Amino acid sequence: MTVVEPEVMPVRPRHTELWARRAAPTPSTAVREIFAAAARPGIISLAGGNPDVGSLPLDALGKSAAAIIAGQGSRALQYGAGQGTEELRSQICTVMSLEGITDADPDDVSVTIGSQSALDTVTKILCDPGDTVLTDDATYMGALGTFSVYEVDVQPVLTDSDGLVPEALQERIHTLRGLGRHVKFLYTIPNFNNPTGVTLSLERRQQVVDICRDANILVVEDNPYGLLRYRGEALPAMRAANPLDVIYLSSFSKIFSPGLRLGWALVPPHLKQRFLIVGESSTLCPPAFNQMLASAYLRDYDWQGQLDISRADYRLRSDAALSALSETMPDGVTWTRPEGGFFTWLTLPGSVDTRALITTAVDAGVVFFPGAAFSPGTAPSNQLRLAFSALSPGLITEGIHRLAPVLGRL
Amino acid sequence: MTVVEPEVMPVRPRHTELWARRAAPTPSTAVREIFAAAARPGIISLAGGNPDVGSLPLDALGKSAAAIIAGQGSRALQYGAGQGTEELRSQICTVMSLEGITDADPDDVSVTIGSQSALDTVTKILCDPGDTVLTDDATYMGALGTFSVYEVDVQPVLTDSDGLVPEALQERIHTLRGLGRHVKFLYTIPNFNNPTGVTLSLERRQQVVDICRDANILVVEDNPYGLLRYRGEALPAMRAANPLDVIYLSSFSKIFSPGLRLGWALVPPHLKQRFLIVGESSTLCPPAFNQMLASAYLRDYDWQGQLDISRADYRLRSDAALSALSETMPDGVTWTRPEGGFFTWLTLPGSVDTRALITTAVDAGVVFFPGAAFSPGTAPSNQLRLAFSALSPGLITEGIHRLAPVLGRL
Repeated sequence: MTVVEPEVMPVRPRHTELWARRAAPTPSTAVREIFAAAARPGIISLAGGNPDVGSLPLDALGKSAAAIIAGQGSRALQYGAGQGTEELRSQICTVMSLEGITDADPDDVSVTIGSQSALDTVTKILCDPGDTVLTDDATYMGALGTFSVYEVDVQPVLTDSDGLVPEALQERIHTLRGLGRHVKFLYTIPNFNNPTGVTLSLERRQQVVDICRDANILVVEDNPYGLLRYRGEALPAMRAANPLDVIYLSSFSKIFSPGLRLGWALVPPHLKQRFLIVGESSTLCPPAFNQMLASAYLRDYDWQGQLDISRADYRLRSDAALSALSETMPDGVTWTRPEGGFFTWLTLPGSVDTRALITTAVDAGVVFFPGAAFSPGTAPSNQLRLAFSALSPGLITEGIHRLAPVLGRL
Repeated sequence: MTVVEPEVMPVRPRHTELWARRAAPTPSTAVREIFAAAARPGIISLAGGNPDVGSLPLDALGKSAAAIIAGQGSRALQYGAGQGTEELRSQICTVMSLEGITDADPDDVSVTIGSQSALDTVTKILCDPGDTVLTDDATYMGALGTFSVYEVDVQPVLTDSDGLVPEALQERIHTLRGLGRHVKFLYTIPNFNNPTGVTLSLERRQQVVDICRDANILVVEDNPYGLLRYRGEALPAMRAANPLDVIYLSSFSKIFSPGLRLGWALVPPHLKQRFLIVGESSTLCPPAFNQMLASAYLRDYDWQGQLDISRADYRLRSDAALSALSETMPDGVTWTRPEGGFFTWLTLPGSVDTRALITTAVDAGVVFFPGAAFSPGTAPSNQLRLAFSALSPGLITEGIHRLAPVLGRL
């Protein structure tokens, strides 16, 4: 008798009956695979929306970090308040004043681990399993990940070149209410949306808030890119005139450094205590040292001058992307023209699923994010996101030249 | 007719029907009030378990931070992998080898925002509302906060001076199963427990894991203090001989710096993918810069020599606390004698609730944490925690001399 050795199973399933319902589905590895492809040598990645941190004054920032640890190490390296330092929360109010939010109280600001943990806490305090969240169509994939973990029903609302369509929002709320759904909040990125690059028009901003207020639905405004406008006129945040109806999220990741993991939430007074206590149960407190370094940056550096440099750089990158698209794209492909931020959004003709193009694109030396990543569920999408924030104009141009024949072959 | 103006309500309740069930209860402010009292001038705080970071080589660490930003800023200030850097995960395996864990694969390690976010993720992937978690009696209040948010039923198991009592654990599991409860894991701090200072004996360690394995319950071993033993012999982690049944959590907060917010989880291979993906949905990734600074500390410094200094310091502080307790405590008060870590745990005679002593203690110039904070629910406790980690021996002695008459008055 021949003994056949069983195949080696590197990970034997065990404890499968211990998963919480929220963790039971097999997690998708699609995003991971795209990032892995993006890291291969020779590949031009138009996938990840990394900011350009190379133009920061690194030598000087290093000296600031050294001075903080040497001079105030016993504070910088110690536990701090769960809400964040008073100095940084005050400075955050100054940053927000540039977005038209002039009445923010530092007491209503919580510093978080990027805006990701702020959104995690917002969802945690507001959503029971099965509750509904409305979003732009399409929306940030990290938000979809958070909503999925909280078993939220995500409903994208019709969005055009002026952003979310108010009439569609109103109708959707009406329909969902008719079905007995518990709609908790609208999650929206009004400036240079991730992934579409689209900006919500001035007129619609207040209409959207009014519709939500009338329906007793909160607005969660996520605005990491607002200060990175390089075309057109700045628009006030939705929070500006609506202090009681909008939870405002933002981040230092795009205007300073994502490696410090500092974001924040400006929370209406009647909601802030639970936000704070539930947030502390996830992360205890934000890193003191990082907050002190961010405070030094906002206090001792010409950070607004640095923003001017960033805007000019991103504008050049956006121009390179738009020119290369005009030059190379086959008939029938359309794209958005962002007024700021990191992304343009391509729509292909017909019923192609852009996920199916990834392998060919990688073979051609370029990678992007397929549109399906920015909607709930697994439906195919004929759209895709190009991020131009992390590359030189030359590489962006080359990347798009590599991409064009992949799309042209369809 | 006289018009009576209504009283000004600073925070009008709104949106109350939007709370998730987990956030609906009015949050307790008791812990906050104790920390506020502890911050008053002249108060000796035996409340907070802060590590002593003052003896770290601050000037040198400042220079390391400067070199990282100046030389590798475009990596340090950028997004990084959700799991953490490869270098730090390898070094964490070396740290864990000092606790008897010699087979850890860096691939199974995830770097987290302190061990708090690791515990948050563990609870998130394993616990549905109503599921049961077993704990030491008493246990870390931050863990209770996390469990509460996930609507977990927390069941403390009888614990004596050798830690968790295996027979009581077995019986409790049997009883709970009989009641149809879903017991998901045992959360235990085997070394110098927070709050009791008690250590789980060598013999019981394997017994506890065996009981849980037989019952198909995971063990979540939280070991932030293990390397801070200053009396007796080191015991191997429960994870050491049990790679598939124990999720191991630890942190740089007590052995280096809590201000960097770096902890980790060593997760069995069959559980790690969900841990990672769900963790990313909360915080995206741990801060790259902080990880690089921790790696420099573990690579370029005599960090084990620094641990020797810390242990000697904490031993002196523990000795000061134990001596002062012997000198001053009234008859009938007993306390634990920790072999390491930050805490001793006092038991008062009779049915007093130590929460009721806080005001008198603060008037006497000292503050502690009442025992009720370390158990689920709101039942009174005749116990209290004294933390001696953050004060000089002289202040510890003075603090306990202030406390004694408060307890003696009973």
